Amino acid sequence: MKPIDITDRTRVRRGPKKACYNRETIYSILDEAYVCHLGATMHGTAAVQPNFHWRIGDRLYIHGSIKNGLFQSIIRGETTCITVTLLDGLVFAKSAFHHSANFRSVMLYGKGDVVEESEHKRFALDQMLEKFSRGRSEEARKPNDTEMKATVVISFPIEEVSAKIRTGGPIDDAEDADYPTWSGIKPVSTHIGDLQPD
Amino acid sequence: MKPIDITDRTRVRRGPKKACYNRETIYSILDEAYVCHLGATMHGTAAVQPNFHWRIGDRLYIHGSIKNGLFQSIIRGETTCITVTLLDGLVFAKSAFHHSANFRSVMLYGKGDVVEESEHKRFALDQMLEKFSRGRSEEARKPNDTEMKATVVISFPIEEVSAKIRTGGPIDDAEDADYPTWSGIKPVSTHIGDLQPD
Repeated sequence: MKPIDITDRTRVRRGPKKACYNRETIYSILDEAYVCHLGATMHGTAAVQPNFHWRIGDRLYIHGSIKNGLFQSIIRGETTCITVTLLDGLVFAKSAFHHSANFRSVMLYGKGDVVEESEHKRFALDQMLEKFSRGRSEEARKPNDTEMKATVVISFPIEEVSAKIRTGGPIDDAEDADYPTWSGIKPVSTHIGDLQPD
Repeated sequence: MKPIDITDRTRVRRGPKKACYNRETIYSILDEAYVCHLGATMHGTAAVQPNFHWRIGDRLYIHGSIKNGLFQSIIRGETTCITVTLLDGLVFAKSAFHHSANFRSVMLYGKGDVVEESEHKRFALDQMLEKFSRGRSEEARKPNDTEMKATVVISFPIEEVSAKIRTGGPIDDAEDADYPTWSGIKPVSTHIGDLQPD
């Protein structure tokens, strides 16, 4: 896989040991997470919206209503920051200060390209459904032309990107080793339940 | 509870029926979620970072390293957008187009106030620990002065805020009612596991 160039915006400065610039790891985080948070400016102020995202090769995709205000900023060519966070654990240390979280996050900067070409757009939307349930794009009634027009699909190059990862137990100061309290990790996981038929 | 004034930035335009400006509901979402996504501009571009948040009364709190770049923007007085998202379900419709998600999200705009006063700051950090485990602020070794100085606590008024909520099953077009595929909801939930002692 193509190596990732670190830029001023993606260099992890706080906790550099948690930094990860490995494409395979970054892709696994993007693929596991359902929700991303999109940031771009609207009238000069940063706005952050949740969205579904999915990946095809070296590009990240989002979709939404053409009328969405934040999408308008992105379409106008504003640099967008897309952040994906998986919370893996609550880390309880003996000292209040060293309480922490295990997590995997990805932060991507880029300009979005509207997917205009009809076959590409249909393929991209199919791939989104496949992320949620394999085979779904063939099972569901395909989008008609009106529905295709109401949906905007935007793709971003996965180039200016970094991940930050924390794993493992609490790291207390040596002098707190015998402090009389419990410590450890409470794992956090996301559970997808069985289908509740309509 | 004080009613919420709707502003240009917090009025939900896309899917206005999903809008919620009820303080009690908004607080329940903020209290249930562990992770928020903070957006502010850095060098003119929006940046989005995950963070823990917690609420005390009518204010939302975050904490972090004084050296964090985004925190510097917030401390300089930049309007910050804080978004919290709980994904509750994947909604499978008969048509590709009407696939959706059940979710509860909150979007808050505001300027942060650094909590300088020592007792207030200690109380606020205690309340964060209490959110993760009741009684923890008394059990853990309290922060010393050096630790207090390394941590910045910022609070935001919960004033310019709105929520967006989707619940229920898929809403298909009438003509798709007999389309031969399954539909329904797969519930999504977050699970906090038992302590794995250190």
